[in-house]
Amino acid sequence: MSKPDSHKSSHAHAPRTVDVIRKKRDGHELSREEIESLVRGVTDNSIPDYQVSAWLMAALIRGLSKAETAALTEGMLHSGEVLDFSSLGVRTVDKHSTGGVGDKTSLALAPIVAAGGLAVPMISGRGLGHTGGTLDKLEAIPGFNVKMPVARFREVLAKIGCAMIGQTAEIAPADRKLYALRDVTGTVESPYLICASIMSKKLAEGIDGLVLDVKTGSGAFMKSEADAVFLAELMVDTGERMGKRMVALITDMDQPLGLKIGNALEVEEIVELLEGGGPQDLRDLTVELAGWMFHVGDRTKSVEEGKALTEELIRSGKALEKFYAMVEIQGGDIATVRDVKLLPKAAHTMDVLAHENGFVTAIACEQVGTACVILGGGRERQEDAVDPAVGLVLHRKVGDRVKKGERLATIHYNSDTRGQRAKKLMEESYHVGAAAPAKRPLVHRVIQKDKSLHKGETT
Amino acid sequence: MSKPDSHKSSHAHAPRTVDVIRKKRDGHELSREEIESLVRGVTDNSIPDYQVSAWLMAALIRGLSKAETAALTEGMLHSGEVLDFSSLGVRTVDKHSTGGVGDKTSLALAPIVAAGGLAVPMISGRGLGHTGGTLDKLEAIPGFNVKMPVARFREVLAKIGCAMIGQTAEIAPADRKLYALRDVTGTVESPYLICASIMSKKLAEGIDGLVLDVKTGSGAFMKSEADAVFLAELMVDTGERMGKRMVALITDMDQPLGLKIGNALEVEEIVELLEGGGPQDLRDLTVELAGWMFHVGDRTKSVEEGKALTEELIRSGKALEKFYAMVEIQGGDIATVRDVKLLPKAAHTMDVLAHENGFVTAIACEQVGTACVILGGGRERQEDAVDPAVGLVLHRKVGDRVKKGERLATIHYNSDTRGQRAKKLMEESYHVGAAAPAKRPLVHRVIQKDKSLHKGETT
Repeated sequence: MSKPDSHKSSHAHAPRTVDVIRKKRDGHELSREEIESLVRGVTDNSIPDYQVSAWLMAALIRGLSKAETAALTEGMLHSGEVLDFSSLGVRTVDKHSTGGVGDKTSLALAPIVAAGGLAVPMISGRGLGHTGGTLDKLEAIPGFNVKMPVARFREVLAKIGCAMIGQTAEIAPADRKLYALRDVTGTVESPYLICASIMSKKLAEGIDGLVLDVKTGSGAFMKSEADAVFLAELMVDTGERMGKRMVALITDMDQPLGLKIGNALEVEEIVELLEGGGPQDLRDLTVELAGWMFHVGDRTKSVEEGKALTEELIRSGKALEKFYAMVEIQGGDIATVRDVKLLPKAAHTMDVLAHENGFVTAIACEQVGTACVILGGGRERQEDAVDPAVGLVLHRKVGDRVKKGERLATIHYNSDTRGQRAKKLMEESYHVGAAAPAKRPLVHRVIQKDKSLHKGETT
Repeated sequence: MSKPDSHKSSHAHAPRTVDVIRKKRDGHELSREEIESLVRGVTDNSIPDYQVSAWLMAALIRGLSKAETAALTEGMLHSGEVLDFSSLGVRTVDKHSTGGVGDKTSLALAPIVAAGGLAVPMISGRGLGHTGGTLDKLEAIPGFNVKMPVARFREVLAKIGCAMIGQTAEIAPADRKLYALRDVTGTVESPYLICASIMSKKLAEGIDGLVLDVKTGSGAFMKSEADAVFLAELMVDTGERMGKRMVALITDMDQPLGLKIGNALEVEEIVELLEGGGPQDLRDLTVELAGWMFHVGDRTKSVEEGKALTEELIRSGKALEKFYAMVEIQGGDIATVRDVKLLPKAAHTMDVLAHENGFVTAIACEQVGTACVILGGGRERQEDAVDPAVGLVLHRKVGDRVKKGERLATIHYNSDTRGQRAKKLMEESYHVGAAAPAKRPLVHRVIQKDKSLHKGETT
C-alpha cells in the first residue's frame, strides 16, 4: 500500500518529516542528512511533538544502525553548547554509569582522578526510578551547590581539576526535549535512543576519554547481560566514531554496591573509602574505574598502573584532600565531611532480622532501591523533595552466612508509615537458603573498540 | 530493560496511556478496556497527540488482532452519533470502495438499490491522492448538495430510499481526529487502522449489511492482491462481529474502470449506464455489486437473483428515474442529467495518439489518476478547489488492438500547461506491445465470513 501523495515535497532540500518517519517505520536506514534535519526540527520546535513521537516509536521498534546512532548522537550533541577545556592544558576524562542501587563511585572518582592530574568536568543527573542520583547525594552535604554557570565550571576545573554539576540548559537541548517525550510515549527502553541521550550529553562536556559503567543484574535497567553488552558496544562505537577514547565495563548490579544506600549514608561511605576503608566491592570497583580513567586519559600506560596510582592517591590522603577541596569550592559544609556524624541523620532506625539460619542467596536489588525511594531517599513523583537522611545500611550481602535473629539490614527513617513499608520490602528482598550461591564477578566484561573481553582474558 | 516507574498508576480503573502504548509496542494484545480508554481519550482530547501517534506507530508495526481491530472499530463507531433507520421499515445497505480511478459505481448503486426497495444511506468522501471521490463527482451536477442534517437525511431516505451525503461532524469524531494524525505521522498504511477507519464510519450509518469493493492493482492503494485480501477479510470479520451481513469483492484496478475519468465525465457515464448503455466493465461491476447489495439486504435469496433484479431495474428505467429523483431532492439541476451535454464542459480537448501498432498491454492506472488530478479534477493540496469539467476519455483499454496514429485517449482541459503535463503522463501510461496480454478478471475473489472464494468457485 502506498500513501498517495508521499512523492511530493515542497522543500527540495529538507527531507519531509513524514517521509523520514515512514522510511524508519519500514526499517530502512536514514541518511545523516535526514537525521540532522530531524534533530534540528526537534531543537527549534519546527517539528510537532506528534511527529517526533511517531519517529521515536519507529526507531525503538525498528532499531538504528551504528551510523544512524552516531548521527543522532552528534546531532543532539551539537544542538547546544559544546564545552572545550583544551585551554586547561590537561586531558579531561569522565565516567558515566547507567544507574544502580548504592552506586556512589562518582563521588570518589572525580576527586581521585583530579588528584592524579587529569581534569574531570562531571555533569550528573538526579535519581531515576529505583536508582539513586549523584546530584541528590552531593546535596546531602549541607550547602553543596550543583548549579554553576559554564564560566565558573571552567574556573573551578582550572583551580582544583574537578567539578560536579547538574545538567545545564545550554547543553544538548535536543536531548532534554526528546527525553521528556520518550518518558510519556513508551520510548525510553531503546538502546539506540539511550546511547544517543547519554553520549550526546557526555561528549558535550568536551572530554578526551570516557569510561562507561554499564550495570547488569536485578538492580540495573538492563537486567540481562546481553542487553548491557549491546548498549555498551553501541556507546563505545559511537564515542570512538567521534574520536574519543572509550571503554565500557559491564559491572554487577545484582545486589546493591557497598553497604549504604541513601544520600547522606552514601556520602558517609565515600568518605570511609577515601579514608582508606569502606566495603571491598565498592573499593574494588572504584579502583577499577579510576584505573581505566587514568588509562583512557593517557595518564598511565596501562589500567594496572592506573589502579596502582589510585591506591596510592587514597593511601596518601591526596584523594580525600581533593574531595574536601571540591566540597569547599562548591559551597558544601566541610565540617560534615570531615566528621560524617554531622551529616543529616534520620530520626529513627529499625532492624530487619533474619528469620532462619543459612546463607544470603540473593538480594532483590531493585526492591532495595524502591525501599529507599519509599523512605523518601528518592522521588515517587518528579516534583517530590528528597530526604537526605533516610536510607538503608546492609549488614549481610550475598554469600554471607547468617543466623536466625541476626540483623540483615538497618532502616534509617523519618516516618513510621514509610519505615514499615520499607521494612516489609527489605524482608522480601533478602533470600536465605541452605547453600552459599555461586559468586558473581564484580566486573563481568570489559568492552573496548573491536574488543569485548571477559574479565581475566588478556587485554 | 524496564521503565522504572511503570508499575505505578494513579488511576486504578483507567489504564495509563503510557502502559497501553508500551504493551502494544512490545507486541502484546490489548484488552477491550484498554482500547476503549484510548479511543475515549482521543475523542475528549484528554490524551495528547504525541501519545496517540506513538500508539498509532506501534499499532502499525506490531499489528492488531481481530479482537483488537473490532474493539477499536466499535470504540470509534460509538465516539459519536450512531444513526438508526429501523423506523423506515426496510433494510438498509451500503457499499464502500477502497478507491480507484474512474470508480463511479456508487452514483448508480444508490438509486438502483433504492429502486429495488432497500434503503441506502450513503455517506461518502472526497478524492484522495490519485483517486476520485464520490462527493466531488456528485457536485459536478450544478446545485447538488451533499451536506444535510441528520433529520433531513432521514426524511430523504424515507421519501426516495436513498441519499448521498458527506461526512458529518457528529459521526465517528474519533476517526476524524485519528485520520488527520495518521496522515502526518506515517501511519496511514495499516490494514488494521484502515479497517477501523472505514468500518467505524460505515457502521455508524446504522446499516444492516455492507458490500465492500476492495480494489487491487496499479491504480489501487493495495497494489498486491494479498494486501487487498488481508484488508477485506479484516473488514468482513469486523462487520460480522457487530452483527452485520458482510461481503467483500476483490476487484480489478489495474486499469481505470469504464472509459471516463473526471467528475462531470463520470456523471455522464453513469447516466449512460442507467440508460442501458455504458462500457461493459463498468456495467458488469455495477450489476455484480448491486446484486450483492440486494443479497446482503435480504431482498433476494441469491446474488444471481439480485443481479437479475438489477438488470431489470436498469432496463425498465426505474433506476434512472430514482437517480433523477435523488438529484432533484438533493438540489441538483435535473436538466443536466436529463441532457448530459448541459453538464460542465472543459474549454479544450486534445488527443493522445498511438506511436506504434499493436495491443495495449498495460495502462499505468495510478498515473492516469494523477493526470486527472493535474488537470484540476482532484486536489494536489487539501485546500484546492476541484474543476468539475476536466478529465480524460479513454478510447482504448488493455487488450485492445491499436494502430499507429489512432487515438488512445482524449484530454479535456481548461489550462494549456496542465493539459500538456497530463498529455505527457498519459503518453507514458499507455504501454503498447506486439501481443495481447492475458486478461485479468474484473472480480478476483469474493470474501464472506469464513469463506474466501476465487470467482468461479461455487458459493
